[in-house]
Amino acid sequence: MLNPDRYFDSDPVVRGIARGLYEQVANLPLVCPHGHVDPRLFAANAPFPNPAELIVIPDHYVFRMLYSQGIPMERLGVPSIDGTPVEADPRKIWRTFASNFHLFRGTPSGCWLKHEFESVFGITENLSAASADRIFDQISERLARPEFLPRAMYERFKIEVLCTTDAATDTLKHHQAIRDSGWKGRVLPTFRPDLAVDISKPGWRMEIEKLGEVTGREITSYPRYLQALEQRRAFFKSMGATATDHAALTPYTNELTLEDASAIFERALKGEWTCQDGAMFTAHMLMEMARMSVEDGLVMQLHPGCYRSHNELVAERFGPDKGGDIPLATEYTRNLAPLLNKYGNHPNFRLVLFTLDETTYSRELAPLAGHYPAVTIGPAWWFHDSLQGMMRYRERVTETAGFYNTAGFNDDTRAFPSIPARHDLSRRLDSNFLARLVATHVLELDEAQGLIPELAAGLAKRTYRLTSPDSAA
Amino acid sequence: MLNPDRYFDSDPVVRGIARGLYEQVANLPLVCPHGHVDPRLFAANAPFPNPAELIVIPDHYVFRMLYSQGIPMERLGVPSIDGTPVEADPRKIWRTFASNFHLFRGTPSGCWLKHEFESVFGITENLSAASADRIFDQISERLARPEFLPRAMYERFKIEVLCTTDAATDTLKHHQAIRDSGWKGRVLPTFRPDLAVDISKPGWRMEIEKLGEVTGREITSYPRYLQALEQRRAFFKSMGATATDHAALTPYTNELTLEDASAIFERALKGEWTCQDGAMFTAHMLMEMARMSVEDGLVMQLHPGCYRSHNELVAERFGPDKGGDIPLATEYTRNLAPLLNKYGNHPNFRLVLFTLDETTYSRELAPLAGHYPAVTIGPAWWFHDSLQGMMRYRERVTETAGFYNTAGFNDDTRAFPSIPARHDLSRRLDSNFLARLVATHVLELDEAQGLIPELAAGLAKRTYRLTSPDSAA
Amino acid sequence: MLNPDRYFDSDPVVRGIARGLYEQVANLPLVCPHGHVDPRLFAANAPFPNPAELIVIPDHYVFRMLYSQGIPMERLGVPSIDGTPVEADPRKIWRTFASNFHLFRGTPSGCWLKHEFESVFGITENLSAASADRIFDQISERLARPEFLPRAMYERFKIEVLCTTDAATDTLKHHQAIRDSGWKGRVLPTFRPDLAVDISKPGWRMEIEKLGEVTGREITSYPRYLQALEQRRAFFKSMGATATDHAALTPYTNELTLEDASAIFERALKGEWTCQDGAMFTAHMLMEMARMSVEDGLVMQLHPGCYRSHNELVAERFGPDKGGDIPLATEYTRNLAPLLNKYGNHPNFRLVLFTLDETTYSRELAPLAGHYPAVTIGPAWWFHDSLQGMMRYRERVTETAGFYNTAGFNDDTRAFPSIPARHDLSRRLDSNFLARLVATHVLELDEAQGLIPELAAGLAKRTYRLTSPDSAA
Repeated sequence: MLNPDRYFDSDPVVRGIARGLYEQVANLPLVCPHGHVDPRLFAANAPFPNPAELIVIPDHYVFRMLYSQGIPMERLGVPSIDGTPVEADPRKIWRTFASNFHLFRGTPSGCWLKHEFESVFGITENLSAASADRIFDQISERLARPEFLPRAMYERFKIEVLCTTDAATDTLKHHQAIRDSGWKGRVLPTFRPDLAVDISKPGWRMEIEKLGEVTGREITSYPRYLQALEQRRAFFKSMGATATDHAALTPYTNELTLEDASAIFERALKGEWTCQDGAMFTAHMLMEMARMSVEDGLVMQLHPGCYRSHNELVAERFGPDKGGDIPLATEYTRNLAPLLNKYGNHPNFRLVLFTLDETTYSRELAPLAGHYPAVTIGPAWWFHDSLQGMMRYRERVTETAGFYNTAGFNDDTRAFPSIPARHDLSRRLDSNFLARLVATHVLELDEAQGLIPELAAGLAKRTYRLTSPDSAA
Repeated sequence: MLNPDRYFDSDPVVRGIARGLYEQVANLPLVCPHGHVDPRLFAANAPFPNPAELIVIPDHYVFRMLYSQGIPMERLGVPSIDGTPVEADPRKIWRTFASNFHLFRGTPSGCWLKHEFESVFGITENLSAASADRIFDQISERLARPEFLPRAMYERFKIEVLCTTDAATDTLKHHQAIRDSGWKGRVLPTFRPDLAVDISKPGWRMEIEKLGEVTGREITSYPRYLQALEQRRAFFKSMGATATDHAALTPYTNELTLEDASAIFERALKGEWTCQDGAMFTAHMLMEMARMSVEDGLVMQLHPGCYRSHNELVAERFGPDKGGDIPLATEYTRNLAPLLNKYGNHPNFRLVLFTLDETTYSRELAPLAGHYPAVTIGPAWWFHDSLQGMMRYRERVTETAGFYNTAGFNDDTRAFPSIPARHDLSRRLDSNFLARLVATHVLELDEAQGLIPELAAGLAKRTYRLTSPDSAA
Repeated sequence: MLNPDRYFDSDPVVRGIARGLYEQVANLPLVCPHGHVDPRLFAANAPFPNPAELIVIPDHYVFRMLYSQGIPMERLGVPSIDGTPVEADPRKIWRTFASNFHLFRGTPSGCWLKHEFESVFGITENLSAASADRIFDQISERLARPEFLPRAMYERFKIEVLCTTDAATDTLKHHQAIRDSGWKGRVLPTFRPDLAVDISKPGWRMEIEKLGEVTGREITSYPRYLQALEQRRAFFKSMGATATDHAALTPYTNELTLEDASAIFERALKGEWTCQDGAMFTAHMLMEMARMSVEDGLVMQLHPGCYRSHNELVAERFGPDKGGDIPLATEYTRNLAPLLNKYGNHPNFRLVLFTLDETTYSRELAPLAGHYPAVTIGPAWWFHDSLQGMMRYRERVTETAGFYNTAGFNDDTRAFPSIPARHDLSRRLDSNFLARLVATHVLELDEAQGLIPELAAGLAKRTYRLTSPDSAA
């Protein structure tokens, strides 16, 4: 059973204050400005198929942990891309998961799953080999009910807005279908042009063709390419987008001359680019994306520092995003200097910086956010979106950047039913963090009471310019 | 109102012990071995003009936070160097500051300011838009009184010694005037030759001319340059200095041959140096400064790892030190090997190392200080001179270096009236840190009682060789 | 007197739970899979000579701290290798140590020594200048008794297995003598071929000759060299070894072709290698060691990131391992990609990774261990084998890697009588860490009760494949 005081310090002074702060925000609507839920869910509004396909198969947080202990991904039903046969019986997959649920002790996945089982599906028994079948049946039974359809869950979760992540060439047809359906849920796209701007990716050439198709004009030159991107941004904006999102190996930024950028682009079109070209073009396109953000007001998010698909064997058999992405030490101070010098003082520009390298919190990100008007620090990300990770984030960021240069929480998840668990955990930890400050007289209680709704929802709304539902129009 | 238990853990066991330890040192005189207070303050002993010029305009910790939230520095009265007009009405500046005081929640500036308002100026009301004018008037009224003159405040603060930071070419006329005045306050210079030793700085050539002037002999060669520096060190020492201070982009050290050093110096005099020359000369001059410290006994301080004036627009309009300095990852182990191999075992040498890269506390600085007789770790610096920052410092440094290889506290501030607040915060946090060790039986109470006066003042005095007031003679 | 609640949080809720968990494991046998105790101790089973030779002279944790405060190593009796005379009177050495025992306040050495004095030698008085002689006499008196002989202490400490660290060319004659003696103590060798695989080390050429001698065939080529190493591994395995151990400046791995590896080896035999050769050969030999581990099942340990003998003066006078080893920032993600891509998914391979760079815990090691079946994270190492260091380790590693991808505790010590103190401290801190999770409802009590024996002994046994005493056969 979920303890009502979970995640609060056991010290009675802190706990008492944390409880009060948490109660202020426990039932606030959920603001989800960044995530990976598939918009098709809400367009189709079909029932989720079964517990394994809901909870195990799509969640790399879950299956990577099982894999790390020697359980083949084939046994977990993770679909292969090379034809390797994988387990097809959801009940068997679920049993494997259940018998190894102890691996999640002390992990955020463990916390989220317990919360999800109990508060979404009403299951109070612990998951184990012994209870596996029973719980499988209980969840299956619920999934068949109308109140477990995606839209019903969205409403039950009190989601105020849910932003998805979409390729530059995405037609946003599911978003359109949601609008056309008359359903009131606010599901907004986010412009993520990673494939379109990274000439070193295998699929780039095809993406450029697709970009030509969706914009109605073949991309034959660098200027046309920029125009196409601008046009797509305008389209995303017309569909309610308020932000863009960018991954990059490093946050290196560097503006090329039009000639140099064009020359690299031409070489890339012919498939004759070099590694150096790739790095320079990425650095240049981050500058261009910032320029466009200044112009169109879309908030720019940057998530650098991840070595994707480190395990090639897994990537070849199962594809990307299979738990084999490993962080890298990341440098922001020098790398972002060109971009921030050009746009960092502009009142229309907002840059949300994320990191997988926690050493940069106090060393680079907080000093940058505590000075540049444009810079905001995104919440503890990915591996660090966890109890200890969030505490480290607050402790390292707050003293230099303050609370108001942080972007609020986002759940960044593709596991839709885990959303309430993630926001709840974040709200509890922020309540506890503020409670510690009150208990040690760094803050007065009324200051903490003023801050907690900001951390729970206000900062996310303002950072992502989501304040009015009409901004989608 | 300031809570008498502020910054102590709410756990009653820890709090009780922390209180007792703090009471031991709460009223000890303040030892200030490193800071940036202008010695002119005490030479002139004129009243501070108004609250904005006292608290907002000179403090980049304060105005950078306001700037980060989009408030133009012009509105804050920060003087421009390019002729841009800035707000001249101190009351208006104060109102802008007051209306945004919530931005400092959870920051050390917020803690220091609250302490300063209440214990220096007797203000118990919270600062806000509503109270701005009232508090402005109260502080203004106090500033006009004789007991708020700089010397009176120095005495009221119970400052035992206050070291300033002065260029190699400074005539120390204000220090001389203080001595001549017969006032008993102990204000000592610190030799900071950064401009004189960095050939890549725009003002270097002029500084060398000035160096020739103050030493009475034109600097026409590298040997004369070294002699001039030695002569200035001797002069500083005669004026009471016990330390030197050095900033550098990295702590890279490397000794050049006399020929190579001379050749670079000659090129620099002609303005024909290269980037490589600049880095090599800086690395070499750190070696020379260590050699001179071995000879004259001045304690050597090294503060590397800051990318100065990251925001060029701000630097061009307002000059350096305007909140746009951003830390860099810093490497000490390899970089300091040449210097420590040559001087690190010498009994006359003391090197105080500071860092803005907290990852080096446990990885590099504590192992170096826990081995080399010459190495001492300076306190948590700049962005890390904060509640959490100081705790991280103690937690990461102590177990490998012990307490006795640390340099004690220094306030490193140009905000004179914030000095008591800074020492008080440090003493409270050290008391709390020791109390946690006692509460968990790592230390016995009498051990902690022996340590707390060391952390509050003893280590600073011994590290900086400030033990006897006569050392100034 | 040792407090029975030492190292537990003072919060009564946490403390109560921690106590209960600790009681579960306080008396479990000690599993010591990695350390540096000299096997000769148990072969000879002779009395320890005196307190100085037992506690001060061999322990670089102890004498480096004294040296850092200006006490010459000569006065501490550390034997010189260049003929410099050193203090020979153990009582004088002991007095110097005792008068400076305050330097160890707040350090793990301080905690271990207090525990050792009291629970091994029955001394309850604090060590100081005043008590120095008395305690010297007490320890001396004990050391003469039969129950203080090494084997008796081994048994009294309830050591279940003790692994030593041995060069590839070691004849393991002491291990053989222990076996031949019929004594039941389980002292196993570990294969550490650092000298044999690092062509840039001064002693390499001689080690290769020795390798030829012990394998009975001169090493004239690279293939013979590999065969010799394989033969030695088989011999170590026959003597009970279950693991190998590898230091390297960086964890860089890279497989060479047979031709390239052979060519470097040939150059090295002739003494004509380059720096580049050295780095490439080390990177290649890590790959070869992994290959052999896949084949023979020996667990591979990797300890990178230490700049050895940073202080050349100390190294020249006293030799290596004298407290002058300083950590370096270390990169695992890119460096280990070749090795993990080749062997990281293999069910027979186990790689235990250690680090002196704590930033890699959450950024690189936990993500690697939380994905690759082969990767396990070794415990907090060396400078980080401390109270705060262990807490940082658990806090940064657990949420991403879980508990089950960690290797359990090892004491890594050459100070034999400190072994119980080290395990006790680790068991207390793990109990306290789990207690915090229970108190904040991250874990249920029964989950923590299931975990604590794993952290205390189970994980170490399984990670190092030490489960059955017969594995030595």
